[in-house]
Amino acid sequence: MPEKNHKLKIQYDGRPFKGWQLQENGPTIQGEIETILERIWGRRIVVHGSGRTDAGVHAKGQVAHFMAEKRLSRIELMRALNAQLPAEIRVNSVSYAPADFHAQYSAVDKTYQYLLESSNVRSPFTPFYVAWTSYSLELERMVEAASAFIGEHDFSAMMGSGSSVKTTVRKVTRCDVSNRGKLFRIIVTANGFLKHMVRNIAGLLIEVGRGKREPSSVARVLESGDRRTAGATAPAEGLTLLRVRYQ
Amino acid sequence: MPEKNHKLKIQYDGRPFKGWQLQENGPTIQGEIETILERIWGRRIVVHGSGRTDAGVHAKGQVAHFMAEKRLSRIELMRALNAQLPAEIRVNSVSYAPADFHAQYSAVDKTYQYLLESSNVRSPFTPFYVAWTSYSLELERMVEAASAFIGEHDFSAMMGSGSSVKTTVRKVTRCDVSNRGKLFRIIVTANGFLKHMVRNIAGLLIEVGRGKREPSSVARVLESGDRRTAGATAPAEGLTLLRVRYQ
Repeated sequence: MPEKNHKLKIQYDGRPFKGWQLQENGPTIQGEIETILERIWGRRIVVHGSGRTDAGVHAKGQVAHFMAEKRLSRIELMRALNAQLPAEIRVNSVSYAPADFHAQYSAVDKTYQYLLESSNVRSPFTPFYVAWTSYSLELERMVEAASAFIGEHDFSAMMGSGSSVKTTVRKVTRCDVSNRGKLFRIIVTANGFLKHMVRNIAGLLIEVGRGKREPSSVARVLESGDRRTAGATAPAEGLTLLRVRYQ
Repeated sequence: MPEKNHKLKIQYDGRPFKGWQLQENGPTIQGEIETILERIWGRRIVVHGSGRTDAGVHAKGQVAHFMAEKRLSRIELMRALNAQLPAEIRVNSVSYAPADFHAQYSAVDKTYQYLLESSNVRSPFTPFYVAWTSYSLELERMVEAASAFIGEHDFSAMMGSGSSVKTTVRKVTRCDVSNRGKLFRIIVTANGFLKHMVRNIAGLLIEVGRGKREPSSVARVLESGDRRTAGATAPAEGLTLLRVRYQ
């Protein structure tokens, strides 16, 4: 029986998971999905995501694929997955992609959102995917700083340790900061992301916003290529993978 | 030292609590607050809320008061409470009210919100204060049905059992239903509420919306005064006390 390339669109609340990628020390989104697929197909099925997300990071538009012969209709498969997956993971669609489609390598770009509430008292109604700070943030400063990330740069200074990649050059096509009252939103689109890259960008922008460093310092941090010159890594809870774009 | 009437505005995520009112079998919002006040004043301080909320019901604008001599400034008291209360309860303001102010008896009316998502797949991003149904809902039918609740009525048919009240007559001044996509919102304002009243109104409106009963049946249910003719009580998770209005 010929294999079909199954493409999944997936949402998750990252809080209960040790990230996307399968690992031994705790539940992961990849692991939860593969467990259900193994029940259906009776053998291990490897699921490829568009990229890893860290422990505690959320996704509204994660994309993944796996090759397997057809066992269930697309709607039956979606229902079987949602019936057996933890409620924090939902499969929003199942489709068949061309055989050469790869969730990671076919991606043109990805967009992440970082949400942060700046207020004296963190409201219990603040959504789980919003981080919090008691510092006041100046939007103008953050907007100015954000523009320095746009373009093709060596993002070594924005990369978490313990990562091995061929190149640390990435092209950022969008880096916007906006706010609505006390809720601040950072949107970053790039052709690829290094480990902790968005959380380090957010961390730097927050330090600029609260006045700890100047907007002009961002270009110098990038040029230095030195992680130690950058700011603190912003907490995972504010980060959500919004969408992955394919040609 | 003369006593001051301390007025608190309070928000809470009701999920971890057995409701507002102090009880022995589990944590309550009143109980959590009184525990902190006892630490500050060194004796039991009784906190009066604008009304009870059921187990699992949330509040964005609960109001409470207690009488005690001044021990801390208002901002110090707010900080002390927020530092020691569970994160699901936040005190948003502390003010001094006239001696005759009573959070329950001085209230002119209260407004509750019931939120419900109608969708095939419940999203992990749906906020915790939104209930969920897989049924499709017809807004027009719900709007028509809701109008029957407005005015002064005997709401016996909308009252949960195990409640003793002097009168079951309440005056509803607002009962609106609206939606934005799959999210349905019911707003009810009244001069007072019986036990489970909003959840029973929501339950009936949901049954009308999904076509299980006709909009015209609402008036007959109210007239009957018989709880058994009404619908299922909608789950607590969708209900939030929005605000309490005083003269």
